[in-house]
Order: sequence, then structure tokens, then C-alpha cells
Amino acid sequence: MKQVVLAAYAKGNPTVANFRVEQAPMPEAGPGEILLRTLWLSLDPLIRFAIDEVKLTGATHLSPGDVMYGGTVSEVVASNHPSYAVDDIVEGRTGWREYAVVDPAQADYRGPPRKLGPEVRPASAALGVLGMPGQTAHACMIGIGRVQAGETVVISAAGGAVGTIAGQIGKMLGARVVGIAGGPDKCAAVEGLGFDACVDYKAPDFADKLKAAVPQGIDVYVDNVGGDVTFNVLPLLKYRARMPVCGFIAYYGMGLTGPGPDRMPGFMRTIMSKGLEVHGFGGSMVGGEQALTDLARWLAEGKVRLAETTYKGLDSAPAAFAGVFGGNRNVGKVVIQVAPDEVVAASA
Amino acid sequence: MKQVVLAAYAKGNPTVANFRVEQAPMPEAGPGEILLRTLWLSLDPLIRFAIDEVKLTGATHLSPGDVMYGGTVSEVVASNHPSYAVDDIVEGRTGWREYAVVDPAQADYRGPPRKLGPEVRPASAALGVLGMPGQTAHACMIGIGRVQAGETVVISAAGGAVGTIAGQIGKMLGARVVGIAGGPDKCAAVEGLGFDACVDYKAPDFADKLKAAVPQGIDVYVDNVGGDVTFNVLPLLKYRARMPVCGFIAYYGMGLTGPGPDRMPGFMRTIMSKGLEVHGFGGSMVGGEQALTDLARWLAEGKVRLAETTYKGLDSAPAAFAGVFGGNRNVGKVVIQVAPDEVVAASA
Repeated sequence: MKQVVLAAYAKGNPTVANFRVEQAPMPEAGPGEILLRTLWLSLDPLIRFAIDEVKLTGATHLSPGDVMYGGTVSEVVASNHPSYAVDDIVEGRTGWREYAVVDPAQADYRGPPRKLGPEVRPASAALGVLGMPGQTAHACMIGIGRVQAGETVVISAAGGAVGTIAGQIGKMLGARVVGIAGGPDKCAAVEGLGFDACVDYKAPDFADKLKAAVPQGIDVYVDNVGGDVTFNVLPLLKYRARMPVCGFIAYYGMGLTGPGPDRMPGFMRTIMSKGLEVHGFGGSMVGGEQALTDLARWLAEGKVRLAETTYKGLDSAPAAFAGVFGGNRNVGKVVIQVAPDEVVAASA
Repeated sequence: MKQVVLAAYAKGNPTVANFRVEQAPMPEAGPGEILLRTLWLSLDPLIRFAIDEVKLTGATHLSPGDVMYGGTVSEVVASNHPSYAVDDIVEGRTGWREYAVVDPAQADYRGPPRKLGPEVRPASAALGVLGMPGQTAHACMIGIGRVQAGETVVISAAGGAVGTIAGQIGKMLGARVVGIAGGPDKCAAVEGLGFDACVDYKAPDFADKLKAAVPQGIDVYVDNVGGDVTFNVLPLLKYRARMPVCGFIAYYGMGLTGPGPDRMPGFMRTIMSKGLEVHGFGGSMVGGEQALTDLARWLAEGKVRLAETTYKGLDSAPAAFAGVFGGNRNVGKVVIQVAPDEVVAASA
């Protein structure tokens, strides 16, 4: 079977040279274990932390030669565990490989593989709108952002996994929702999801366009990016605005510091003078079950649409992951379809 | 009469060269106006924004030659306004001068001069515990910080006007309160106000001492400083900690950016990974009346003690203000007693 390992730690944005595709012996399920065939692999930008030269507290961290870390949807192909049967579809974190053996009793703090019911279709939705990105978007708009009808919400990385869902939740809540994304094609796709407007941060008149798009100022800024984009947003925030921090992809390639000057003085000044509330999502699953229930209902009712970009085959993972940081044209959750079409179709 | 004007905009920390003491003609109260004799002048660090070369949105800004801006407590010496009588004691923003004429009908958004009742004694307390610093400390500990009994609170600039009050409120709420201040003398004074401990940020083993002082981690960090002090605190914050931002004096001498490297990546990482809540006080008077009522009662009951450092004479203001930024030995609110002893005594 095939797997992808870390070839070398990443500096700045990852490239294909950070990864190596290998053949590995087919694993076998021992007592109490289950053998999983990977159907879908999630390319979460947070994986970047696992492959940085610097190990920072709290994040999973790999060594060169380790199989790449990542969320997956798999089917059970052999089971020595009473809670799992062959053909069950599960969501877990088995990494960048075609097959994996898991001992459900040895689960990390996130628990053993989660069995997906028939309502989670396509099953890849468990990695997006019906998984962590959906929970993040729910928390940022409702729990932390407390978005109200009539408010103006700006969402950075609006074309991303979290952004596409957050914006749709915002429209459902009755807010004016403005996205920020890179390039006219991506912006068109974002507007196609129902955002009131999308502003291209790559355009030379970005700052003016953004200002024109929020004539009443901004009540809630859902930040997935940081960096230049965020510093263009700050002057437009209203007094007592809220800023849920759900990602900071502009800084993922850095450790604790980046190239100067230090922008902390201006950030702290804005926080203080505007009475700004900056609140991190924290990867926490607080309210997570409710979020999944809500999102499944909204998806069924057509209030939220699935946005997904799919690449085929494990070989495509390194370039696709590098592309996540490269200002590509992906819209929504980026997933790798690891198993062949006929296997995925049979499991649907 | 004497007044102090801005001689030149400040770069970095202010010095006496930024100010000039002048003689000016004695003002007279016209129709509807009142003539005030300054008893006390507040040296609020926020005045720094008014004398920066760069005018930043939102803050009062002066030009060279303008009389320095600042909060004051005064007595009414002549009145052509029905709401004010001779000998009334009022708090306002009449600036660095011995006398001032005010038209209460032309008040800014903060309203006309506030008449102080006999419970505000010494009257200088209206510039500290029974004024804006008290309201700030109240908001940061209660409204924004939501400090609970048994929690660990760390307060930077613990020896300052806000810090001394915030710490005493924290003890009243049943929290463990650790201050950060500069130098052993100031730390001793802070501990004398009831803080459980005070850590000297100028000591070479500051980081270790701070860590040892918060064995359970930090639930609430009341930041009045920013900069190096804050970046030593961040790793000790607990998951889902709160960080009320009530000042950022390390950055007051900068505009929107400071010398590199850029520390935003580490700050955003902490906000995100810890689910940190960073919330600016915003100079807002939200809940301000309740805060003054609470503080007057606590002061009367002896639960909060007045901490004040007094300099005498308007001539002392430039050096004293420069000292606010220079790591001096001031403890509590820094005020200038502008009127002679006998005048102040007669008004008490």
C-alpha cells in the first residue's frame, strides 16, 4: 500500500519537496484492532504545525520519516473490535496512507474513530461541513461571534473550508456577509454561495473596495488569516466589534515571530481604543455536538450547501497541500479521494 | 497665572524638552461660564497620544503651543452658570494650568464638569480610585475579566493607577492576585496593598519568578503594558483564559508599528490555540456609574485603599509626566497638587 511521509521540515510555505510517497507493507489488524481503508483524506492547513522545524507547545509534531498526520474518512475492512463492523464508515485521524490499523482502546483525547450514520453523505462531509471546519464556523459565528440579524460580518479566507460555511451561517442569521478571498474566480464562487459581496485581496484597490463593501462598518470580523488582510480590516471595525480568531494562515509558516516591523502596537491600540473583543476558537469542541446536529439539519434543509474541492489519489496530496498555502483556486474543504471511484461509490 | 504648553511633539518616551512652562493672562468668566482654580492635575499615561507627531484616529491631539491636555479637580472661584456655585469642587479636563474658564454648555462627549460630593475626599481621588482609573479597574476585573473566587489573576503595571485598584478588587473577589512591577521597592509597595505576590520585571530571573508565582497557571491577565512583559505572561495562561486590555504603555511611544521582529504570529497563535479572550476596555464608561458607586462604598468600608503619588506645583508636571514612562518609583495614581497647601486644605 501507499503512504506519504515527511521528507523534510517545512520552512515558510510547504512545497512538494517536504513530502515523499512510499510503498509500505499492508498492515494487519491484531486483537481488538480494526483495519481501515482510507476513502477521503482532509488537507487541513493546521497540519502545517506538525511539520515545522520548531516544535511549539500543544500541536502534534512529526519527525522526518513519519507518516503524515491528517484527518480521514475510512471504511472498516476487518474488525476485531465489537463496536466496529466491516463496511462501517468512520472518521478518524489515520494520516496520509491507503490503509491503517487502529486500536480504538488507545484513542487520543479526541476519542476513537467516529462512526458516521447514513445522513453523512457524501462521507467526505465529515471532514468539512459535518466535521471540524463546520464546528469551527458554527462556534465563530454563533458561540464566539454572536452574530445578530442586520449586523455586518466580514470573513477572511472566505473561500476556505471554514469561511464558506461561516458565510452561509451568517446569511441564515440575517447578517450582511462580506467575504475576502484571492482572485476574481474565487470571489465569484464565494458570491455564488450567497455572500452579499466578496472582495479580492490581491486587487490593487483592495482597501478601497473593502471599505466600500461595508458602508456601516464591521460588527464581526471572522479571521482565518491574520497578516496584511487583517490589518486592512481593523480600521473598519466598529466600536465594540467582535473578532473571532478561527485561523491565522498568513502566520502558519512562521514560529512565534515574523519579519518586522512589529505590528503589535497598532493591534493593541485597536483592541484598547475600540473596546475590541478578540477571541480564539481554540480548536475546542465546546458545543461541538450541537454544531453537528444544527449543520446536518441545515444541510438537509438546503440552508447550507456543501463546498468541496477534490483531488484524486494519494499521490496528489503533496502538491494539493502546498497549494492550500499558495493562493490556489480551491473553494471550500480540500479533500483527497484516496480510494478509487468504484470503492467510494460502493460505500456511498 | 502659570500654564504648561506643548513645546515639541514627543518621539518615544516624553522628556521635559517636550514641554514649556509659561505665564498667561488670568482668564475671566463670560456669560454662562465658570472660572475654575486647579487644585489637582492628573498625569494619565494616555495623554501621550495627544503629543505624538502622528495623529491617530480617536485620540485628542495637540499642536505645539497648545496648553497640555489633562484631567483636573478644581474649585469654582466665579460662576455665571446656575448649576455651579463658588466653592463647588468639580472634576473636568481643563488641562495643565492654574486657572481655566469653562462653558458647561459647550461640553465634549464626556459632559460638563462633574460636581464632587463630600464623599470624594481627598478630592484628588476623583482622578484615581473614584474616577477613570477606578472605572477602568472595575471594568477590567468585573465586567470584562469576570474574575471568580479561587482564580489566579496577574496584573501588569501593578503599581500604577489602574493596577493598584484592580489588585485590591481581585483580593476582595477572593482571587489569588499576582502583580508585575518594576523594582523591589515598587513590588514591596504593591504587596503592601494586599497582592499575594509581586514579581519584578527588571530582575534577570523574571520569567522563572513569574512562573513560580502562578503554580496553577493564569485565569485572567489584566494587561496595562504589552511588550516584553506580556510575552512572558502568554505561555502561562490557561486554556480559555481572559485578557482584559486596559492599557499598553510599552507601545504608547510608537505609532502603529515598532521595531521588528513582528510578534503578531506568536500572539495570534496563543489566541487561537488557547481559545484566549482578549478584550479591550475601550475607555468606555459602560457601567461607569455603578463602578463609582461600588468603589466609593469599598473605599468607605476600607476594602480598597487609596494609592497616590503626589508632586507639588505645576512646574513639576513635565518631569513627573516623563517619569511615568521612565520606570520610576511612583505607586498608584500620579497627581500634581497645583494649588498651594492652604488652598487645598481650605477646600477639603
